[in-house]
Amino acid sequence: MRLSRAFLPTLKETPAEAQIVSHRLMLRAGLVRQTSAGIYAWLPAGLRVLRKVGQIVREEQDRAGAQEILMPTIQSADLWRESGRYDDYGKEMLRITDRGERDMLFGPTNEEMVTDLFKSYARSYRDLPRNLYHIQWKFRDEVRPRFGVMRGREFLMKDAYSFDLTPEAAAHSYRQMFVAYLRTFARMGLKAIPMQADTGPIGGNLSHEFIILAETGESQVYLHRDLLAFDALAEAPNYDGDLKPLMDFWTSRYAATDEKHDEAAWNAIPAEHQVSARGIEVGHIFYFGTKYSKAMGLSVAGPDGAQVIPEMGSYGIGVSRLVGALIEANHDEAGIKWPDAVAPWPAVVINLKQGDAACDALCERMYAAIPDALYDDRGERAGAKFADADLLGHPWQVVVGPRGAAAGRVELKRRATGEKLELSPEDALAKILG
Amino acid sequence: MRLSRAFLPTLKETPAEAQIVSHRLMLRAGLVRQTSAGIYAWLPAGLRVLRKVGQIVREEQDRAGAQEILMPTIQSADLWRESGRYDDYGKEMLRITDRGERDMLFGPTNEEMVTDLFKSYARSYRDLPRNLYHIQWKFRDEVRPRFGVMRGREFLMKDAYSFDLTPEAAAHSYRQMFVAYLRTFARMGLKAIPMQADTGPIGGNLSHEFIILAETGESQVYLHRDLLAFDALAEAPNYDGDLKPLMDFWTSRYAATDEKHDEAAWNAIPAEHQVSARGIEVGHIFYFGTKYSKAMGLSVAGPDGAQVIPEMGSYGIGVSRLVGALIEANHDEAGIKWPDAVAPWPAVVINLKQGDAACDALCERMYAAIPDALYDDRGERAGAKFADADLLGHPWQVVVGPRGAAAGRVELKRRATGEKLELSPEDALAKILG
Repeated sequence: MRLSRAFLPTLKETPAEAQIVSHRLMLRAGLVRQTSAGIYAWLPAGLRVLRKVGQIVREEQDRAGAQEILMPTIQSADLWRESGRYDDYGKEMLRITDRGERDMLFGPTNEEMVTDLFKSYARSYRDLPRNLYHIQWKFRDEVRPRFGVMRGREFLMKDAYSFDLTPEAAAHSYRQMFVAYLRTFARMGLKAIPMQADTGPIGGNLSHEFIILAETGESQVYLHRDLLAFDALAEAPNYDGDLKPLMDFWTSRYAATDEKHDEAAWNAIPAEHQVSARGIEVGHIFYFGTKYSKAMGLSVAGPDGAQVIPEMGSYGIGVSRLVGALIEANHDEAGIKWPDAVAPWPAVVINLKQGDAACDALCERMYAAIPDALYDDRGERAGAKFADADLLGHPWQVVVGPRGAAAGRVELKRRATGEKLELSPEDALAKILG
Repeated sequence: MRLSRAFLPTLKETPAEAQIVSHRLMLRAGLVRQTSAGIYAWLPAGLRVLRKVGQIVREEQDRAGAQEILMPTIQSADLWRESGRYDDYGKEMLRITDRGERDMLFGPTNEEMVTDLFKSYARSYRDLPRNLYHIQWKFRDEVRPRFGVMRGREFLMKDAYSFDLTPEAAAHSYRQMFVAYLRTFARMGLKAIPMQADTGPIGGNLSHEFIILAETGESQVYLHRDLLAFDALAEAPNYDGDLKPLMDFWTSRYAATDEKHDEAAWNAIPAEHQVSARGIEVGHIFYFGTKYSKAMGLSVAGPDGAQVIPEMGSYGIGVSRLVGALIEANHDEAGIKWPDAVAPWPAVVINLKQGDAACDALCERMYAAIPDALYDDRGERAGAKFADADLLGHPWQVVVGPRGAAAGRVELKRRATGEKLELSPEDALAKILG
C-alpha cells in the first residue's frame, strides 16, 4: 500500500478525551475513530490488527476442536426470559422494540441463544461433546464508556460454549480452552497468566481470568515467578490427551488479582519468587454445569436411553479489547511497537527524497520485494515520515536516502528495540523476511 | 473435519415456512437456523460459505483500490438528522434509545457515517480520491421478513463509498466498482448482468443493479445475448487505465429488469439475440454527486486553494443474500451444487463400511491427502451418507466401499454434473487437487 493513496490519517495532537496510553495512541495513529460514546469505527490500520488478532483466536479455537458458527447480534427477549436473565441484566443490556412491538436486545453474550440452538439439533449422547464458538460484535450499554476500545459499548468478542455429557468430560473441555488460551495470547507476543476468578452474572463454580502483564495495566496482580518462565508454544498440545498436568502446573502456583489476593498465601512464597505487576484482563472462562441447559430445557438421550442434561461452560476473549491491550504492553514515547504477529503491515519503506531517481528506484525495489509492505511515498519531510512510522509501530522500517541509494545501502530499523543497521538491500530483505 | 465430531445437523423434513428453494435447502442442509423472524444464526457449513463469499468480495474491492474499514452497527440518530434521512427512512429503520436516552439506530446503510468520518480527516485535494468500504451486519426491519437470508432483517452487506474531486473522477470510481463487481460475481461462478436502475432512497442520477441469472430467480429480466458471452475473468483490468470502453460494452446493449423494461427497445433486438430470464439482485451501485457531502459539510481545499465539495458514490453487495442466490443458481432435487470457489469444503470422503480395516485405511489416506476435506466417518448407512453429501453439495465425493478398497479403487463423483468415475486413489486425488 502506497501512503500517497492510503487512508491512514494520523493526528499530531493528543486527543484530550483519551485517558490511557492505548486510547491516545489508537486515536493518534488513526486506528479507530469514535462515532458515538464508546462506539468506534475501525480505520484501515486498526482493522488489519483486529483481523489478525481475530484470526489467531480462530486458529487456536479450531485447533482445540471448537467449531465456528455466527450468531446474530439481535436477540429475542423471550430467550432471556427463559433463563431468568432478562430482568437480572439491568441497564447494561441494550433493549430494543421492533416494529412489531416485540422485545428484542443487542446481545451482550450468547449462553441462552447457543443453548437454544444446540437444543434444536442434539438428540443423543453421540451429539456430544461439542464446542461452538463465534466472533461477533456485542453491546454493553456502559454508563460512562471510557478507555477507548478497552471498554467500549460495541465490542468484538470471541465466545465459545461447550456441551458435555458428564462433569468429567466438561472439565476436559474447560482444560482444552485453558490451554488454547495460553497459546492464543503467546502467539500475539503477550505473557498471559490465568487467575482464579469469580463467576459473576454468568454463574457456575469454576472460572479463570486471563490477565496479560503490561506496565500501564488497569489492575494490580500477584504471581509466582515460575509462571513467567512457562512457554506455551514450546510444544503442540494433544487436545485429546490428558491436559490435567498442564493445568495443574498453573493452578498449583500462586496467581491472583487484587480482589482475590490472599496476603497469607502470598507471604508464604519466598520473596525472590514473588512477582507483583500490573495486568489487563483479556479472557475469561467459566464452567457452570447445567445452569442454562436446565433452564432452557436441553437434554439428550444417554447411552442407557435415559435423558441427560448436558454440562456446559463458556469461554470469552475480548478481541477488540486485545488491540488496546497489545498497545498497553507494547509502546514507548514515540508510539506503538507492534509484535510481528499482529502488526498491520510487516514493514514500511521510507523514501527520504521523493523524486530522486535513485531513491525512488531503490524504494520501489524494496517495496516490491516485501510482501504486504507499506511504502511512504508522500511528499512529506523526513521528520514527519519517521514520526508516523514510529507512531504506527511497523516492526521494520527500511529507510532509503540519496546517499545510501547512491552507495546501494539502506538503513534498517527494528521498531521494538530501536536497533539500526546499515545494510545492502539484499541483507535487509533477508532480515525482514526471516 | 470428521463428521462424527462435527456440528453439521441436517433435517430430513422440509421446513414448512420456507417458500423458496434456497431457504428450504439452507435449513435442510443446516447452513442457518432462524433465531427470530428474519434473523439467522450461521452454522459451520453456512458460515464457511459466507466467509468465502466475503473474502472474494474483499479481494476484488482491494484489487480495485478500495480500502477496508469497519464501521459500527449502532449509529447516532443525529448523523441521520444532518442528511434529513432520519425522518424519511420510515419503519424499516430499527430505532433504539440507549440508557442515556439518546436516539440511536441499527444502521441500514452508512452514507452519513462514512461522510462524517472522512470529513474528520480529509483536508485537501491530495486526500482524494479515496474509496472506503466495509463488510458489516446491517438491519432492515421488514414488515414480513421471508425468503430466508435472501430478505432477512439482519444481513451482511459490503458497502463502499467513493470520494472524488470532480464528476469525471467520480465517473472513473464508478467504473472501477462496475468492473470489480463483474469480476466478483464471475469468481463465484455466477453470470451477473448490470442493469440500469432507479436510485431510490439513496438518491443520485446514475445507478446499476447487478442481477445474476437463476431459473428460480425472483424477477423477470431481459437482455441482449452478447452479454452472456462476456468473460469478466479473461484478463486482469488496469484500474488506473481507461475503463470506459469496457463499461460501454455493457451499457450499449439492452439489459433491463421488469420495472425498467422498454418494449420498443426490446422489439428492436433481433429475436435470436433476445434473452428473457429470471434474475436475482445481488449488487447495486450509485453515483449521487454531492448529496451527502453537501448535507454533512464535507469539503476540501482544491489545487487552487478554493474549497471543493467532493463527489460521492456508494456501492453495495449483499454478502449474506449471495449465499442464497448462489443456491438458487446451483441446485437440483437432491440439494446444493456448490461452485468450487465458495464450497464449504472441497470434498467429502464417504466411508461405506465404517470399521472395515481396508475401508478405514483408504479413507484415512484420502482424508489426509485432501486439504480441508470432510470425512463422513459416521456409523450411518450408505444411503444416508449419500443423501447428506448431495444435500450439502460438496463439489467432489470420494466414495470408498469394501470391494473398491480391496481392489485399490475409489468412486469419484462430481456433484455439479453427476459424473462418476472409478479411479485409483492417486488419479482421484489428481482430479480433486487439479
